[in-house]
Amino acid sequence: MSVREVEQTSDKHFDKALLADFRRVRLQSVDSCRPLQLEDYGLQAVAETSPTKWHLAHTSWFFETFILKPYRADYQPLNQHYEYVFNSYYNGVGEQFPRQKRGLLSRPSVAEVMQYRDYVDGEISALLGADSEFVEVITALLTLGIHHEQQHQELFYTDIKYNLGQNPLLPVFTEAPLSTRETATLGEIGYHRFNPALVSIGYGGTGFCFDNERPQHLHQLSGFCIADRLVSCGEYIQFIEQGGYRQPQFWLADGWAAVQQQGWQAPLYWQKIDDCWHEFTLHGLLPVDLDRPVCHVSAYEADAYASWAGARLPTEQEWEWAAQQGHINGSERRQQLLRPELMTQPNACDGLWQWTSSSYSGYPGFVVEDGAVGEYNGKFMANQLVLRGGSCVTSPGHYRSSYRNFFYPGQRWQFSGIRLAKNSV
Amino acid sequence: MSVREVEQTSDKHFDKALLADFRRVRLQSVDSCRPLQLEDYGLQAVAETSPTKWHLAHTSWFFETFILKPYRADYQPLNQHYEYVFNSYYNGVGEQFPRQKRGLLSRPSVAEVMQYRDYVDGEISALLGADSEFVEVITALLTLGIHHEQQHQELFYTDIKYNLGQNPLLPVFTEAPLSTRETATLGEIGYHRFNPALVSIGYGGTGFCFDNERPQHLHQLSGFCIADRLVSCGEYIQFIEQGGYRQPQFWLADGWAAVQQQGWQAPLYWQKIDDCWHEFTLHGLLPVDLDRPVCHVSAYEADAYASWAGARLPTEQEWEWAAQQGHINGSERRQQLLRPELMTQPNACDGLWQWTSSSYSGYPGFVVEDGAVGEYNGKFMANQLVLRGGSCVTSPGHYRSSYRNFFYPGQRWQFSGIRLAKNSV
Amino acid sequence: MSVREVEQTSDKHFDKALLADFRRVRLQSVDSCRPLQLEDYGLQAVAETSPTKWHLAHTSWFFETFILKPYRADYQPLNQHYEYVFNSYYNGVGEQFPRQKRGLLSRPSVAEVMQYRDYVDGEISALLGADSEFVEVITALLTLGIHHEQQHQELFYTDIKYNLGQNPLLPVFTEAPLSTRETATLGEIGYHRFNPALVSIGYGGTGFCFDNERPQHLHQLSGFCIADRLVSCGEYIQFIEQGGYRQPQFWLADGWAAVQQQGWQAPLYWQKIDDCWHEFTLHGLLPVDLDRPVCHVSAYEADAYASWAGARLPTEQEWEWAAQQGHINGSERRQQLLRPELMTQPNACDGLWQWTSSSYSGYPGFVVEDGAVGEYNGKFMANQLVLRGGSCVTSPGHYRSSYRNFFYPGQRWQFSGIRLAKNSV
Amino acid sequence: MSVREVEQTSDKHFDKALLADFRRVRLQSVDSCRPLQLEDYGLQAVAETSPTKWHLAHTSWFFETFILKPYRADYQPLNQHYEYVFNSYYNGVGEQFPRQKRGLLSRPSVAEVMQYRDYVDGEISALLGADSEFVEVITALLTLGIHHEQQHQELFYTDIKYNLGQNPLLPVFTEAPLSTRETATLGEIGYHRFNPALVSIGYGGTGFCFDNERPQHLHQLSGFCIADRLVSCGEYIQFIEQGGYRQPQFWLADGWAAVQQQGWQAPLYWQKIDDCWHEFTLHGLLPVDLDRPVCHVSAYEADAYASWAGARLPTEQEWEWAAQQGHINGSERRQQLLRPELMTQPNACDGLWQWTSSSYSGYPGFVVEDGAVGEYNGKFMANQLVLRGGSCVTSPGHYRSSYRNFFYPGQRWQFSGIRLAKNSV
Repeated sequence: MSVREVEQTSDKHFDKALLADFRRVRLQSVDSCRPLQLEDYGLQAVAETSPTKWHLAHTSWFFETFILKPYRADYQPLNQHYEYVFNSYYNGVGEQFPRQKRGLLSRPSVAEVMQYRDYVDGEISALLGADSEFVEVITALLTLGIHHEQQHQELFYTDIKYNLGQNPLLPVFTEAPLSTRETATLGEIGYHRFNPALVSIGYGGTGFCFDNERPQHLHQLSGFCIADRLVSCGEYIQFIEQGGYRQPQFWLADGWAAVQQQGWQAPLYWQKIDDCWHEFTLHGLLPVDLDRPVCHVSAYEADAYASWAGARLPTEQEWEWAAQQGHINGSERRQQLLRPELMTQPNACDGLWQWTSSSYSGYPGFVVEDGAVGEYNGKFMANQLVLRGGSCVTSPGHYRSSYRNFFYPGQRWQFSGIRLAKNSV
Repeated sequence: MSVREVEQTSDKHFDKALLADFRRVRLQSVDSCRPLQLEDYGLQAVAETSPTKWHLAHTSWFFETFILKPYRADYQPLNQHYEYVFNSYYNGVGEQFPRQKRGLLSRPSVAEVMQYRDYVDGEISALLGADSEFVEVITALLTLGIHHEQQHQELFYTDIKYNLGQNPLLPVFTEAPLSTRETATLGEIGYHRFNPALVSIGYGGTGFCFDNERPQHLHQLSGFCIADRLVSCGEYIQFIEQGGYRQPQFWLADGWAAVQQQGWQAPLYWQKIDDCWHEFTLHGLLPVDLDRPVCHVSAYEADAYASWAGARLPTEQEWEWAAQQGHINGSERRQQLLRPELMTQPNACDGLWQWTSSSYSGYPGFVVEDGAVGEYNGKFMANQLVLRGGSCVTSPGHYRSSYRNFFYPGQRWQFSGIRLAKNSV
Repeated sequence: MSVREVEQTSDKHFDKALLADFRRVRLQSVDSCRPLQLEDYGLQAVAETSPTKWHLAHTSWFFETFILKPYRADYQPLNQHYEYVFNSYYNGVGEQFPRQKRGLLSRPSVAEVMQYRDYVDGEISALLGADSEFVEVITALLTLGIHHEQQHQELFYTDIKYNLGQNPLLPVFTEAPLSTRETATLGEIGYHRFNPALVSIGYGGTGFCFDNERPQHLHQLSGFCIADRLVSCGEYIQFIEQGGYRQPQFWLADGWAAVQQQGWQAPLYWQKIDDCWHEFTLHGLLPVDLDRPVCHVSAYEADAYASWAGARLPTEQEWEWAAQQGHINGSERRQQLLRPELMTQPNACDGLWQWTSSSYSGYPGFVVEDGAVGEYNGKFMANQLVLRGGSCVTSPGHYRSSYRNFFYPGQRWQFSGIRLAKNSV
Repeated sequence: MSVREVEQTSDKHFDKALLADFRRVRLQSVDSCRPLQLEDYGLQAVAETSPTKWHLAHTSWFFETFILKPYRADYQPLNQHYEYVFNSYYNGVGEQFPRQKRGLLSRPSVAEVMQYRDYVDGEISALLGADSEFVEVITALLTLGIHHEQQHQELFYTDIKYNLGQNPLLPVFTEAPLSTRETATLGEIGYHRFNPALVSIGYGGTGFCFDNERPQHLHQLSGFCIADRLVSCGEYIQFIEQGGYRQPQFWLADGWAAVQQQGWQAPLYWQKIDDCWHEFTLHGLLPVDLDRPVCHVSAYEADAYASWAGARLPTEQEWEWAAQQGHINGSERRQQLLRPELMTQPNACDGLWQWTSSSYSGYPGFVVEDGAVGEYNGKFMANQLVLRGGSCVTSPGHYRSSYRNFFYPGQRWQFSGIRLAKNSV
């Protein structure tokens, strides 16, 4: 339910399930951090990878800023400086502490951030425990805040992986056991074929979705084929070994420039040891499994691989239509496995976000919400591409087939993989 | 006609109109440079703005590389180093002299470049004067080369404007007289309204078009409105004076970053003198005319203006559909006027390319041509936006309503303006 | 005593005072860190300002690398990766972990670094407890290591000040009380006058000195005058308020470029609050005291101030000669005062390093030591200037009048101030 | 004779030799450019290498600014914009057109710059033809301007070499014939030995010198040895082939950083063709002669070579003292040879500037001149090193043994070579 469409009704009581949801998700955030040592909470290797501590504080800031300050009578912030320090990018709220310096915030300490979380949680509980004439708008904002926190739960994993990955000691995040297998047993990729069709794209349900998934609208698809699984590490190694990173004809011009400027020769986190490919994972340094989907590639690499393989990336509408038809499934986190599974395992899900060729932009009829909360999605509709599918670090219950993730085409630190598509001839 | 679809037929004679076209366009290129002094031919202020001399040579290189070398028996290049020096971006042909250093090529001299043009022209004439079993493919490539040269004729104007504009002496390119008027007499912008429709987009004719205009395909449009003229300088000055460049809420995130990093406070070439806005033009420094369309804005500025005005940019399909219906016209160069006309003049055309909100990508079913000539368009389908409409420096006869120009959203040195659109409610 | 000059003698016992010295200095390093929270130990705001934890580990690495590995029989390193991770700049030892990434080393944890210190201390104690045929070389290296650790004790203060200073919460390092006074009571600077003389420069004693203080040599001085105190904050504020930072005629060309590129308008750590100058200190944010010496200025600012004041900076030889004559005293840390004292207090020392106009280079006859330890000083003899005098954060017992500190002229995060000089007319 | 020391005397006539000198040097500047094509005059590859046209204009600007405007009654500038456009770095005169954009000044054209030269020359002639009460100060300034123009004559050669050297066509500047020889016949370098001495350094004569050569002063030298010739290309190739560019122990820290960041593997202009070293020269691309002095090395390379060879660079005082004693000679341009000669030829001079280990700073008692002309030398006394000796492109009559040239230690586009020195043991 979007904030903008809320209308005041006569109901003044909060649904009890809301507070339960809130508490469950808030606990999950803290729970995910347990494997860390205290010194790990402040790491920030590049501007994009925020410290764990900052994620824990910023998600609290979101509830404080958009719910407690406007709707909790006589609300007193725990620390007035936090408004500035933990604002991510909301110009409508005020100035922000520079993103690339978040790793320099040794204070507030981890303990103080946990205290901040408790304080906000207590205030939200109190707010929801009482009757209110703003039940609907608060419910909408709190639901948004819960989904916002789930997004940061995923960023926690992607960011801590990158940040720990800078350490030559290659710290192991989780000791959970992992089966590995280096012998490829996968068959060739198959393709699902779709006829031209005028289809409905976007969220059409009655539950929560982000504003960028709406409005639902008609879209004319040409005929196309879409792969029945992701590209495997074994297949990608062939691309590498046949000189894929050295042949400009497979690459978009901006992609080729990125290859040369950044010296890419393999996916992020890959290194060759004794002539054998290894990858740094949240389970430590491991040999690359040929039958797992290739991960941590940019859209440029995905596009180049597709060109090399005589295919292309799907559009986001093709992807969504195939998912609506039940031919593609999304992924979320399962127990302690923080890595995509072997594609040959029964019931394996893809475990990765999948680059599409679609630029991230507003659907026809899309309108930005009023106020600072309107900065949530709309202002990023330039220069980014849509990814679909969820991943092995997406929070349980967070994914939808209409979900639109988005990143710049040169970014590699997300759990991003490759699904191929083709024109239907 | 696309190169890929050419089939060999029994006809071995070239159409005589082809050589005439070739000669006419080749002469236009040289003719456009007449106002320059010899020292101006080598200027390159930034990587994007190539020297005049380089445009004159590279267009010749195109004919030499794609026609003379493969199809002219015993062809001897005038200078074998030119293959490297004047290759723009065709990796399939070989390495390229670095783009940002083109201004350092004092040799070959202008005279030697003119000699190179003559040499290539003579060889092309000889090739076309004889029978050939490759008539169709050569005709297709030569037609492509002619349109390619027309594109560089436009770049000549945009680049020399930028390059001369770095000189504090503010050189006047053309002395052609210009009427000016500083009193605004324009009424408000009106809107054409369109109903939802499944429409055909892309080139469907039998003449020449670039590969990126095809295949023609169906596209579902929602209802929309599109403005009946471009945004005027007078209107844009209101945006400036009401603080448009200082208020992040109107801007895309990447646009706001650009404003801050580059210190934008007005369109490119504008400066305030004695509290009055002036702009550097190819006719010299002139006061800004309130009733001319605002020019040399980035897509970020166009988008921010639209937000401020309660509107949005059109998609390229909306634009094309409105043009197909006769509600928008394209622009080309007229005589000696190298500036958009006053919008109040009878028969005035817009005179500017118009940013759309559409990312530049392949149409459904688009396939890149084989070989180096396939690098012409396809590899740029990332991070750029489509512009529609032609401009006051577009070569006569070059424009089509299906024409897709494309630049990065932060670029401002093209003749780019703003047409607004709105959702139909 | 220099390493190179050690000769083997018959004495095989270590002087017991050596181990006592070692233990005392090692304890001081840990003791200095007590006010920190655990999260502070990893901070690194820029490449130059290493994390506290890194200083604690690198100083241990020094003893391990130059003493334990070569001279301790069967020495087993605690962790073999530390050789790479905690190497600062000794190419002779091997590759180094990139300096600018030291802040990303959340592991080893602080506890593990303390364990590393204990391990090294224990091994050194064991080494010194037994007879050895290498007593002299080990003594020389251990003495060097002790002085090396004292240098890092000072860097600990300068670096943590900078690193905490990035935090908008402005953390207070020490709560030790400080008297402040905003009324200036200082008189004008007086000058000591010196006649031309052929003087001895460099260390001539029998104790420890760094290799760059030797050989002692003759130097011909022209007549000169040197100030009897440092430039005060009050005097420097006049320079600021009379436009010193906006007038290029006072500045070296490279200094003026630095002013413009970095936007300097006052010393590092200064900010104006309610029209009153304040400075961030290790005691927190405080009003600027007019009678304290101005601190945290670059050599460019020192030189520009001197030009503005009709004076110049002294050469290092002038400074040393004046110090030899008893007219200038050096400074070291006193109790808990981590800020230069008021110049009007009885027994106040200057409390700051003082920029000289002398480039850091080898004295006549200087020869670099053999081996990796030869990289200690010699390879930095380019582009840096000598500072003299010690400071309020220099370790007790560390300073000599022949001591040569050196930094790049644009650096400001050291405790650096200004002493004026003049030609004698 | 320094400007500051001029006193008004009763003589009101100008020495006729002065005008003759002026005319001779002015003509030389234009004469040196004859081999150029018109398109070459505007080239600027990097900020340091100004266009030929700019040198021709700026030297005229110097006379206009410092002589004609203050001392020529009713002087009318030819173009008032030139004051800004051709100001190099004199803040006392006003703002400057950005240095790195000089290559974008296609206007004024070469013809207009020549007209500017003629105009200034005519005005100077007129000024000198009449009596004046300012004879002495004008004489001093004109003499300075003449030497200033000679400095730019040398920069013309170094800059055009660099600028043409960017062109893959490798243009030949001069067709003058050159003997070459690839067989090394040189013996080992010999050394002149000097005892410790208190010597006079700086210019002590009555003719012209730059302010930085004064005041003459006493300097205490330790004993030293200085090489009897420069390091040859053959010797330098051994340094390269024995891995000199890959071994950090020979390099200053800043030098090693430069090697890595800039990928140095040989002197500037060197390239290997068919396993044989070649160098781009003003005579075109030529094989490296083993017996010529190695040229176009930075001070970092000179210092690293010296370390590798077990020697060091001389101080500027050592160099000057050896020159005073007749053991080293300076170099100037000879006829049409724009390259250092073979060291085995009779009467060969060194032909290169020689890096010293001395930082460029004011001599004891040095005082900057008042006014804008005081910016000539003094403000560059930071971060640069002194070179001594003159070169094969230094203007005839320009050199003195007290002459102090200065550049940043990483710069390589000057004609700079290596003379070794050693401590006397």
